[in-house]
Amino acid sequence: MASKTEARREALRKTLIEIAEKTIATQGLRALRARDLAKEAGCAVGAIYNVFGDLTDLALAVNARTFHRLGAEVAAALDDAGQDPVDQLVVMAQAYHHFAAANHLSWRALFEVERPEGETAPDWYLQEMGRLFVYISDPLSVIFPDAAPDDLVLLTRALFSSVHGIVLLGLDDASAGVPRQDIDRMIALVLHQVTASSRII
Amino acid sequence: MASKTEARREALRKTLIEIAEKTIATQGLRALRARDLAKEAGCAVGAIYNVFGDLTDLALAVNARTFHRLGAEVAAALDDAGQDPVDQLVVMAQAYHHFAAANHLSWRALFEVERPEGETAPDWYLQEMGRLFVYISDPLSVIFPDAAPDDLVLLTRALFSSVHGIVLLGLDDASAGVPRQDIDRMIALVLHQVTASSRII
Repeated sequence: MASKTEARREALRKTLIEIAEKTIATQGLRALRARDLAKEAGCAVGAIYNVFGDLTDLALAVNARTFHRLGAEVAAALDDAGQDPVDQLVVMAQAYHHFAAANHLSWRALFEVERPEGETAPDWYLQEMGRLFVYISDPLSVIFPDAAPDDLVLLTRALFSSVHGIVLLGLDDASAGVPRQDIDRMIALVLHQVTASSRII
Repeated sequence: MASKTEARREALRKTLIEIAEKTIATQGLRALRARDLAKEAGCAVGAIYNVFGDLTDLALAVNARTFHRLGAEVAAALDDAGQDPVDQLVVMAQAYHHFAAANHLSWRALFEVERPEGETAPDWYLQEMGRLFVYISDPLSVIFPDAAPDDLVLLTRALFSSVHGIVLLGLDDASAGVPRQDIDRMIALVLHQVTASSRII
């Protein structure tokens, strides 16, 4: 009996994630509402909270899938990028941009889940981020062979954040007057400039 | 009579902006609700819409003031920065960070007002952004004397977006594992690397 209950729970979990994923992709994170989810899943509102502690947990489960797809696209771009480490950085950053543009609301949701002040991200999130960071720090350590490990760590995070900022403001028509069609060029410009010298200043 | 009505309207406008400014600063943009505003201003909900077309207009009026304060702090930092153009960039970017940290929710609201798909930002917003961009492009044109004007325009926007991304993810504890205390160092790192060569690659 226990396993039958468990199987039903698992099926509902899968259904809820799929519905939430579609809702976030088409209407954004803030459109996630327990009542709508329950209606579409054909379950009681309370049943949702038997599977997920709260809607934040459900949103995080969707984000985990989005992160996975993002990571796969960045990895695929890296596979096609050849051996030049600067090219590798540019190609991955542009893949990040294209994923964000093609999955705008899902991508935004990665950064929109609110946590209580001071609470850090869950482990799986930090692990996914860590995987992305390795994609960046590997070519950086080729470009800057004499860099202090500490500087490489910071530069990795700084460049991820920089590309994120360019993509974020570029895709948001209203924000900064940065035209979308120039996003890839801006990414390449910054990454080429940052790597113009082979040492960290 | 007309001028008395006009004066009352102007007084309510000022009151509403002040209340909304406090609400956004302490609870964020999403806490802005007509009913709460009316209650605190001692007016009917309908009276709000006599003064502002909708809550977005009110939020934009608050953002205009935030932008002004931000611009003033960046300008003050520039005044103290000396003549070295790289120093000027670093000092302004760090002033941007400090403003964002000290006015976190108000600063976030600058980028959170939602507009209908495809609608661009209002003129005053683009003018304020334009003023910030001039602070950046002036030192850049000293650092890169031979740069094509086109490249300078893009690099200006790309660097603004980069610093914005570093500050945004850095201040959001949950996002990217970028420690807050390293934000200033990351900003300096990126800006020094970008300007290490005196030509645009």
